[in-house]
Amino acid sequence: MSWNTFGRVLRFTTWGESHGPAIGVVLDGCPPRIALSEEDIQPFLDARRPGQSRFTTQRQEPDQVRILSGVFQGQTTGTPISLMIENTDQRSKDYGEIAQSYRPGHADYAYDAKYGIRDYRGGGRSSARETACRVAAGAIARLIIPEVTITGWVEAIGTSAIDYARFDAGQIRANPFFCPDAVKAAEWEELVDSIRKAGSSVGATVMCRAEGVPAGWGAPLYGKLDADLASGMMSINAVKGVEIGDGFAAARGTGESNADAMAPGAGGAPEFASNHAGGIAGGISTGQPVDVRIAFKPTSSILTPVPSITSTGEATEVRTKGRHDPCVGIRGVPVAEAMLALVLADHKLLHRAQVAKR
Amino acid sequence: MSWNTFGRVLRFTTWGESHGPAIGVVLDGCPPRIALSEEDIQPFLDARRPGQSRFTTQRQEPDQVRILSGVFQGQTTGTPISLMIENTDQRSKDYGEIAQSYRPGHADYAYDAKYGIRDYRGGGRSSARETACRVAAGAIARLIIPEVTITGWVEAIGTSAIDYARFDAGQIRANPFFCPDAVKAAEWEELVDSIRKAGSSVGATVMCRAEGVPAGWGAPLYGKLDADLASGMMSINAVKGVEIGDGFAAARGTGESNADAMAPGAGGAPEFASNHAGGIAGGISTGQPVDVRIAFKPTSSILTPVPSITSTGEATEVRTKGRHDPCVGIRGVPVAEAMLALVLADHKLLHRAQVAKR
Amino acid sequence: MSWNTFGRVLRFTTWGESHGPAIGVVLDGCPPRIALSEEDIQPFLDARRPGQSRFTTQRQEPDQVRILSGVFQGQTTGTPISLMIENTDQRSKDYGEIAQSYRPGHADYAYDAKYGIRDYRGGGRSSARETACRVAAGAIARLIIPEVTITGWVEAIGTSAIDYARFDAGQIRANPFFCPDAVKAAEWEELVDSIRKAGSSVGATVMCRAEGVPAGWGAPLYGKLDADLASGMMSINAVKGVEIGDGFAAARGTGESNADAMAPGAGGAPEFASNHAGGIAGGISTGQPVDVRIAFKPTSSILTPVPSITSTGEATEVRTKGRHDPCVGIRGVPVAEAMLALVLADHKLLHRAQVAKR
Amino acid sequence: MSWNTFGRVLRFTTWGESHGPAIGVVLDGCPPRIALSEEDIQPFLDARRPGQSRFTTQRQEPDQVRILSGVFQGQTTGTPISLMIENTDQRSKDYGEIAQSYRPGHADYAYDAKYGIRDYRGGGRSSARETACRVAAGAIARLIIPEVTITGWVEAIGTSAIDYARFDAGQIRANPFFCPDAVKAAEWEELVDSIRKAGSSVGATVMCRAEGVPAGWGAPLYGKLDADLASGMMSINAVKGVEIGDGFAAARGTGESNADAMAPGAGGAPEFASNHAGGIAGGISTGQPVDVRIAFKPTSSILTPVPSITSTGEATEVRTKGRHDPCVGIRGVPVAEAMLALVLADHKLLHRAQVAKR
Repeated sequence: MSWNTFGRVLRFTTWGESHGPAIGVVLDGCPPRIALSEEDIQPFLDARRPGQSRFTTQRQEPDQVRILSGVFQGQTTGTPISLMIENTDQRSKDYGEIAQSYRPGHADYAYDAKYGIRDYRGGGRSSARETACRVAAGAIARLIIPEVTITGWVEAIGTSAIDYARFDAGQIRANPFFCPDAVKAAEWEELVDSIRKAGSSVGATVMCRAEGVPAGWGAPLYGKLDADLASGMMSINAVKGVEIGDGFAAARGTGESNADAMAPGAGGAPEFASNHAGGIAGGISTGQPVDVRIAFKPTSSILTPVPSITSTGEATEVRTKGRHDPCVGIRGVPVAEAMLALVLADHKLLHRAQVAKR
Repeated sequence: MSWNTFGRVLRFTTWGESHGPAIGVVLDGCPPRIALSEEDIQPFLDARRPGQSRFTTQRQEPDQVRILSGVFQGQTTGTPISLMIENTDQRSKDYGEIAQSYRPGHADYAYDAKYGIRDYRGGGRSSARETACRVAAGAIARLIIPEVTITGWVEAIGTSAIDYARFDAGQIRANPFFCPDAVKAAEWEELVDSIRKAGSSVGATVMCRAEGVPAGWGAPLYGKLDADLASGMMSINAVKGVEIGDGFAAARGTGESNADAMAPGAGGAPEFASNHAGGIAGGISTGQPVDVRIAFKPTSSILTPVPSITSTGEATEVRTKGRHDPCVGIRGVPVAEAMLALVLADHKLLHRAQVAKR
Repeated sequence: MSWNTFGRVLRFTTWGESHGPAIGVVLDGCPPRIALSEEDIQPFLDARRPGQSRFTTQRQEPDQVRILSGVFQGQTTGTPISLMIENTDQRSKDYGEIAQSYRPGHADYAYDAKYGIRDYRGGGRSSARETACRVAAGAIARLIIPEVTITGWVEAIGTSAIDYARFDAGQIRANPFFCPDAVKAAEWEELVDSIRKAGSSVGATVMCRAEGVPAGWGAPLYGKLDADLASGMMSINAVKGVEIGDGFAAARGTGESNADAMAPGAGGAPEFASNHAGGIAGGISTGQPVDVRIAFKPTSSILTPVPSITSTGEATEVRTKGRHDPCVGIRGVPVAEAMLALVLADHKLLHRAQVAKR
Repeated sequence: MSWNTFGRVLRFTTWGESHGPAIGVVLDGCPPRIALSEEDIQPFLDARRPGQSRFTTQRQEPDQVRILSGVFQGQTTGTPISLMIENTDQRSKDYGEIAQSYRPGHADYAYDAKYGIRDYRGGGRSSARETACRVAAGAIARLIIPEVTITGWVEAIGTSAIDYARFDAGQIRANPFFCPDAVKAAEWEELVDSIRKAGSSVGATVMCRAEGVPAGWGAPLYGKLDADLASGMMSINAVKGVEIGDGFAAARGTGESNADAMAPGAGGAPEFASNHAGGIAGGISTGQPVDVRIAFKPTSSILTPVPSITSTGEATEVRTKGRHDPCVGIRGVPVAEAMLALVLADHKLLHRAQVAKR
């Protein structure tokens, strides 16, 4: 994990700014002879793409991905896979006024404090547009772990949480909220609409689950599967919290309430009575579903004026009038899924490096 | 961050098992000419040391650290600092019966699934004893960032949380719980005692704050300060959740409630009206206190029998009779503080690598 | 240094195949606020560009570099700099016949043995075309170390070596051989012409010198400046040997003949009587010029038929009729210079990470 | 490869100074369930150990290695293996006078220029004593690659080279020079004796060969097997040059003289007519023996006074009277073998990470 590179043996490096000519990602370490074309990647980008409903930003980007290297005659060659997405809808004029003042809650001030310069157009490098690159890389990661099924959903928008009694995975793609609870999805239409009309924003909690992960991926102590997941998820724009399994709820319980009893299972693997651990013990997968929950803060781009300062240190107020997501957590679902796929694929390769196939 | 190494330019590598002859850590990349002796490290180890009150494990380890390299005439030389702590109280007999069965909630099964072998004595490598090495390395990290003050405390034990209206930093070291709320500390004596006597365990929430971090440390996107903190904290034994600033609470709020308004401050730096962001925006420090909250699960070592399996796949029950902490989160405070110091020191050095002193 | 990434805190990742749509490099970790435009990079690419004289391959590539990210209003921003060069002259038909047989001395067989697939067009990823990316990245690295002057030259073609008594740095860019000896440059015209006309190839020795490197860059033991130089240089296509200072000649001498006596010099720095060490002692720069010598093998692409095998294991013969350099070492000069710049820039940043500016 | 850590997935970190209490190495990433005890390591340390003949330094160190972690019931567990060797013969008084002056050709000045402090006792961290740690780690690396046989020998001492017509591998361990040519070994007794008696020193060339390396280890472009070998070998104390296969001799030849013709071989693998490439093409092993040649400079520790400066910048002269090797290259053989084993073992694991067992 370096500045703009994530991963250990399956590594990706992203580049590009919100309003530059393009953004892109180079994925290195991919196993050879995996069938791959743009069609394997595009559906995931489409799922994340803005402008598809009134509940996300109205920025219109086709987000067409192009494979520039690493694939020959329809198969990966083991060399770096370079993916590029052109930026087509760059309304720089929207951002003119923030050139001189810091948007509270955004990275504007921090970037300037660090680098003494920032590309203020659309947040530049700090824009969530970068997450398209993760989604593209994640689509390839999924092909490396065909044994694993990854599913993400929105668990709550603001204080409005789904009811797990109504959980239906088939609903997730059937509404614009990645919501597995049809009743709640209907409620969220109204909720998010009112937020959007008010020029406000709201946070969200996203849950991601990987089924089919065999026991044994991950490694003590600083290569723990959960440590890498925490790093990868926390690196997503607007994420402020990460939980594995029961997370903070586990901290409120006892050893008895948190125990995951085991019994002899089919095929030699144990059968677990519960999954408080979220599929990871001691940093290593147990064979249960890997559960990760992440908290997206409400975007700071709101119509309500917030006191701030200019880049020369004077008092000002900032109101954000650009095209923004009322709830960035919604489009965070495909991003979180991609990060989960990327971490798991990396650990699959790492596991066979040290232990080989057993 | 590799298997047993953490950090980018300030890197530490830990080694050792709970019941081997010793544990240790090699810290590499430390700046030269910092005054250092065992006396700078020992107090932090003493704070973490087991057996100091009836509320922690009764294992008796003097945990005397010895500097084996990297220091000459009382100063760091810039070469690797090797620290070793001998294991003296190794009652291997306590663990005989778990050689053949997996303790539910522990890493026993996962280690075996991965490696096909495990040092079962006291959990071997997966024992929380490893955290002594982090604390030792962290003591040196603090010397690299003298501008920063790090304070950790227990925020809640189980469902019993402190009242921030009674927050008194001076109390933290005055009770065996690292509790800043004297009233709550008194309550916790009874609470933890009852847990201990019942052979049960309880989770805890720990808060860590770093004051004095200048704006500009950290880096987008996979070298984010919060991503590294998430990785470092999640790598601590028994941790299941990490929050920066408001964390999951932010996900329940709106852009208005989450805004950290800025005003012109003294010395050119902005004055923030609040710190929902926990001192980090876009992965870069803002100059506000860096706030990290972590969730410790209750240890799985309890007297209540839990169904499990043997290493040959047969049904069994496991009751843990060894000497264990009723609440591992308590001794997690010095560990979390150490990880915070290590991440910050690393990022201080990284920042000056790319941007130099400004 | 990972598969396609080089560097520690100044890292670059290259991608692309000889006959794909483009090649490129992402440079990460560059300090901010350095003036940068395509014009700073293009001259170095032009110096390496094929087809400029009859002594290099006749492949015609304009090698126009395009900056896609990391620069705003003419300055670096500290975020990744993505550079792309389109491939325009892709005569794939030249390579049709090598699809089924392995060119001896090339990477064809090794790639297939490793990956089970290879992009055979022009050598695919193993083509020396990749070195254009290093040259582009190296142009930026030079801007990070303005205190350093880097000069490379061809020291010998085959057995025909320059006479250092005639060394004239001004000659290096005045002939198509990067030859500092005008007399030898004239001889080489005939030599290389005859090699070219015979469809043969010849090796070369290239020397690179960095002047102005302050004492103190580099680090024991696996971050030695010379270890990184060795890795970087050996990673260049066709390089089979690396020497620092006197190199193998030092192995034939004595402690007396190899001693670099020191005397008090101006400004506190020592004055060295000689530079057998090539400017590096214990892996750390001494303030003397850093001297690196590398050996380029003759390219294996020759007209003389060489026995080989097909990809299905049958005997065959391979004659290479494509457009190739009779002496790849010549165009290796800008590449070696670039690698020297990249290693030094990385170590400048690393040095200030650990030790800061002194 | 970081400051004191080498390797990618099989990583070792060394620590310790020549005259500190101990030196050591932590090897991380070792596959589990490999039988390992001190007896597997000690013979390699004994081969490198000083004081065994009058041709090496008379420093007397038993160099007894102790395994402190990572092994349980005689088998590796997959967790870090910590090895420690105590320093017993620390005659610090020998080095008193160099505390204030820089030994020319040594790292003394460079360390001070970098760090502003140095442990001058016996060269501190820059002492070749560190290489014992590599030898210990290398002994374990060999167990990871049982299919590979590694053999190193001295090819030349000063200008006196062996005659390959008399090459007999059985001779290598039969004389104190790791010399495969019995005639030359006899000559070297006199040669090295005269150098030793004169208080002088002499360089040497060491050759290392790995047989049994399958085709496919290594990776383009910055993870090339030869790039890693170059880095690893150049990081050894006193090494100034590295060659793969024909090395610099290849630069003097033509495409015809350098061609390694292939023919159909047994078991599907090609049969090569020669091995100019040293077993590596495009950074990937070809299945031929991997040949690496390295140049050791003569140690700078000689009795002849050499002009130098003091640490306060005044003129002085340095004569080295301590116990030193007249030819450090001799004891370099086990060190170079160890580095070759470590690089190969790392690449075996990396290969199966990306490509798995085929």
